[in-house]
Amino acid sequence: MISTIFNHRSIRQYKEDAIDELVLEEILTAGARASTTGNMQVYSMVVTKDTALKEKLWESHFKQDMVKQAPVVITFCADFNRFNKWCELRNAVPGYNNYLSFFTAAIDALLVAQNVALAAEAHGLGICYLGTTTYMAGQIIETLNLPRWVVPVTTLVVGYPDESPGLTDRLPLEAVVHKEKYTDYSQNDIDSLYTEKEALQETLDLLKENNKETLAQVFTDNRYTKKDNEFFSEKFLEVIRKQGFLHQ
Amino acid sequence: MISTIFNHRSIRQYKEDAIDELVLEEILTAGARASTTGNMQVYSMVVTKDTALKEKLWESHFKQDMVKQAPVVITFCADFNRFNKWCELRNAVPGYNNYLSFFTAAIDALLVAQNVALAAEAHGLGICYLGTTTYMAGQIIETLNLPRWVVPVTTLVVGYPDESPGLTDRLPLEAVVHKEKYTDYSQNDIDSLYTEKEALQETLDLLKENNKETLAQVFTDNRYTKKDNEFFSEKFLEVIRKQGFLHQ
Repeated sequence: MISTIFNHRSIRQYKEDAIDELVLEEILTAGARASTTGNMQVYSMVVTKDTALKEKLWESHFKQDMVKQAPVVITFCADFNRFNKWCELRNAVPGYNNYLSFFTAAIDALLVAQNVALAAEAHGLGICYLGTTTYMAGQIIETLNLPRWVVPVTTLVVGYPDESPGLTDRLPLEAVVHKEKYTDYSQNDIDSLYTEKEALQETLDLLKENNKETLAQVFTDNRYTKKDNEFFSEKFLEVIRKQGFLHQ
Repeated sequence: MISTIFNHRSIRQYKEDAIDELVLEEILTAGARASTTGNMQVYSMVVTKDTALKEKLWESHFKQDMVKQAPVVITFCADFNRFNKWCELRNAVPGYNNYLSFFTAAIDALLVAQNVALAAEAHGLGICYLGTTTYMAGQIIETLNLPRWVVPVTTLVVGYPDESPGLTDRLPLEAVVHKEKYTDYSQNDIDSLYTEKEALQETLDLLKENNKETLAQVFTDNRYTKKDNEFFSEKFLEVIRKQGFLHQ
């Protein structure tokens, strides 16, 4: 268990090898064992292998090749559709057309996704999360026929690794852990917590490649820009509304 | 790994035994190995052991006794505060005051939480997620001194189990898995997927106890009511706005 967690790398190059059906079923079942709010299981996993459908998903996910390469793409959705249908067929009036219910269902979906990721890795498979899922949720909804009350929140590509990257750097643990209460960061704290990251050869290469003065600028100016964030924020909120969760 | 996942139970009764510091550190480090968007690590874990603080958290979490009983309470937060401060100190202009950035940070925090949960369980510890975190986010922000750009999204209580409950029932795997695309549920599908759950002795006891005709009514009328969901939706959206993520 612990060693699977500590050996995690995101894999972006995959072999063509298919995943055995029994292995895939075990991985998905591992997902379904995750904690879920009130045991409502308000999530769904859409498992896509079909080449034409993966090609459409690849377009939504900013044409990242791993989406076409990996044999299996799993889209994790906040899903109150099944639960609402059950309520209606059982003489119960569901009250889940609100933001809290969406977020509750998103939590369910994300805990499931991490179980699936770790179970896959324990089987020697590689995974990569696709952050583009929320950006392009509207298009993914069309491709996968997701009905009202269903919103995709993350995606995993899964397959046998065709690369073996090193561990990704992380900030020192004290950067992300607060004892008892939150202690805000002084300038000195920030300087010291980011020293190691900023001195990495990888960072120096990025600065040169992007012609930037600081690593933070690579994020704000190139990777996660204000303009993109605001554009995709509006789109994602519109999707949440359209799927039924922001009736107010 | 796989066996830890398949043996998960939520634990609601804890022994007083403290958690060894090295064990706790390994568990938190396991959290920090989770996938994180663009390696930004936009989350924080607030680790609370202090009795007086735990008492305040217990009040926020609807006075569930496990919050006082468990030796450690970990609050997982979507956190752009550290990253924004770093940007500002590095001559970079952060553009993360929007909903997409909040959701991105929430994904980070939730994947971290599930790694922490599994690493704890691999060490023989028990855990329980507290869904009340989003309901009472405003009060938790005050108790833990969370600054702007920080929103609590889930909480784990962690400690040595003082009960050994059976596995929780789950719907059949086909209820939560869709092949290729989403296939919507017919009335027959719902009936067949929920048959086993509705026939459990536990369900029959709940109906009697709550004086309800169907299990779905226990959810809609007692556990997760429209009124509560709407009330806490507004509160949570207000928190997300107040913490800086809904400037539009």
